[in-house]
Amino acid sequence: MKLFTKSLAVVGVSAAIIATTALADSHAKVNPAVAARQSQMQIIGYSIGILGATAKGEMEFNAEMVASAARNINALAQMDRASLWIDGTEQGAEAGSRAKAEIWMDTEGFDKKMQALADASAALIDAQDAAAVGAGMGALGGACKDCHETFRGPKNE
Amino acid sequence: MKLFTKSLAVVGVSAAIIATTALADSHAKVNPAVAARQSQMQIIGYSIGILGATAKGEMEFNAEMVASAARNINALAQMDRASLWIDGTEQGAEAGSRAKAEIWMDTEGFDKKMQALADASAALIDAQDAAAVGAGMGALGGACKDCHETFRGPKNE
Repeated sequence: MKLFTKSLAVVGVSAAIIATTALADSHAKVNPAVAARQSQMQIIGYSIGILGATAKGEMEFNAEMVASAARNINALAQMDRASLWIDGTEQGAEAGSRAKAEIWMDTEGFDKKMQALADASAALIDAQDAAAVGAGMGALGGACKDCHETFRGPKNE
Repeated sequence: MKLFTKSLAVVGVSAAIIATTALADSHAKVNPAVAARQSQMQIIGYSIGILGATAKGEMEFNAEMVASAARNINALAQMDRASLWIDGTEQGAEAGSRAKAEIWMDTEGFDKKMQALADASAALIDAQDAAAVGAGMGALGGACKDCHETFRGPKNE
């Protein structure tokens, strides 16, 4: 990910702030690439919440809802990295970021962990009951945990 | 979208709050389905910001960056609707929502407008210079505007 010069990232980021601010006031003070990645994670977390609640029986099993949540996680795990994980937006460099610098030093390793999430979510698309969702939650939660342990830094103060 | 009972939506939403809150504190008071849709829009807006800045020459043309932004818009425009556009989360029913009830009354029309966004973004994936990006911005911006005019309500107070 050393393809982009710092100046390119900064110019792009400034330009994008205009589009972003109107859409997400709560993110206005955050670098928009960081905000976009947090949005990506937010929808993933939301979708996993649906699957988890279904697995636990807190939410009635609904095949369409489960497939939808799983499909969306799958799509989000495969989002194109180049415009989201921009150089110079790691934790410490940009407020609010928890992305470790290791993401940029080991893009192959990072991609593998995102692919594990894509695979674990794909396996749930056709789940036919809550037990099947539960059976797949280990791999799904494991993919989250595994990537966070390696590539996510501690909470920002 | 009358597949989900109100109680299902409410239970799911409550369960999902747990997963969502940790990931996006700023969204904690917003219905998580609404927050997830806002996240979807935020990444779309961010990505369009990159394309717009490139078209205007404010950002140096970078084929990888343009393709990445266009691909991500394309994927986001095709996110599965069932787990995001949940019954009872329209403007007026949920704080912060600007989704008009018409979305649920005319799902086919809504899908068509999302497809127009998917098509307009797909057309930009292989853009080879800033002029080509500029040439595609009309259709892209038009898709946004067209859908917002029909299906997005006024700003919330």
